[in-house]
Amino acid sequence: MSSAGSEREAAYFYYPRPVAVVGVVDPARSSVNFAPATWMTPLATDPPLLGVCLSPATYTHHLILASGEFTLSFLEHRHAGLVARIGRLSGRDVDKVAALSLEVRRAETVEGGFLAEAYVAVECSLVSRHQTGDQTLMVGEVQRVHAEEDVFDRGGVLRVDRICPLLYLGGGRFVGTDHSLLVQPDPGSTP
Amino acid sequence: MSSAGSEREAAYFYYPRPVAVVGVVDPARSSVNFAPATWMTPLATDPPLLGVCLSPATYTHHLILASGEFTLSFLEHRHAGLVARIGRLSGRDVDKVAALSLEVRRAETVEGGFLAEAYVAVECSLVSRHQTGDQTLMVGEVQRVHAEEDVFDRGGVLRVDRICPLLYLGGGRFVGTDHSLLVQPDPGSTP
Repeated sequence: MSSAGSEREAAYFYYPRPVAVVGVVDPARSSVNFAPATWMTPLATDPPLLGVCLSPATYTHHLILASGEFTLSFLEHRHAGLVARIGRLSGRDVDKVAALSLEVRRAETVEGGFLAEAYVAVECSLVSRHQTGDQTLMVGEVQRVHAEEDVFDRGGVLRVDRICPLLYLGGGRFVGTDHSLLVQPDPGSTP
Repeated sequence: MSSAGSEREAAYFYYPRPVAVVGVVDPARSSVNFAPATWMTPLATDPPLLGVCLSPATYTHHLILASGEFTLSFLEHRHAGLVARIGRLSGRDVDKVAALSLEVRRAETVEGGFLAEAYVAVECSLVSRHQTGDQTLMVGEVQRVHAEEDVFDRGGVLRVDRICPLLYLGGGRFVGTDHSLLVQPDPGSTP
């Protein structure tokens, strides 16, 4: 272990992380705004909560506070280019659905929708938020999970032999999983 | 998009995620307790904050509240077995460092230490915590980043051609990255 890179922010040490494309209804445009996020984590199982970290400067932050709800769309590695294009635009300037010809599936429990390309998407209602430094952690309760067939096994585990999830590495780079590296060292252990 | 799996918790949709082994000083044993966590996210860059979600029932939760600090060790895919062994034991019952012959590096800004096998490890001081459902989000400020040489490129991005990070899939299963899938669709875009 070297002392090189021992400054506080020398590295994007917390990547790779799955990309979740946040979708929020944009009533002024009668559309849905989409923006990629990777600072996301499950927060609880009962009730099922997750947190998405967003800058207060973003249009997505503004829309979530206005609607109190959002969706998350998880895409495969082959959609890296689409995610980059969605991330490059700001919803303040353009309707991304129109500009990028995005195909949107209507959500069931929220006003917005999710990306048709998603292998899994969830609908969330905003239940709380916390300021953390220069960001806001939006806490959502999962109301619906939409999954393509055969994406998860019967135990709910992603079938990486079928799906190569898109993972963000930092610096505009993405990577995917190698399903030949699937291991289960001990059936009973769960970190 | 099928309606199959549309229940609220039908799938571990938020995996794969990097495994962070949380290390906290255990003064009663003059040791460091280690436990794998995957419900973790960056929360801010200024100051550099991250959040780790833990059950109040865990020994790690107890130790972090007592010491006000923790480390995170990130391991390569080849250490999946070690992580599973660490996760299988409880620090309430045993000193895992002794039981598993763990090699520990002494931290610089906190009392505890991190795993010698880590390709990157960070030291954090606890700055706040939030109850989220049945869990606690421990918010740490990053005080030090220790990285092996040549693990990150000059932009701070993980070199997946050299390091295969350990990713948790749920259900006791792990996977790794495929570096041949590294892509950069647009140099300027960052989700």
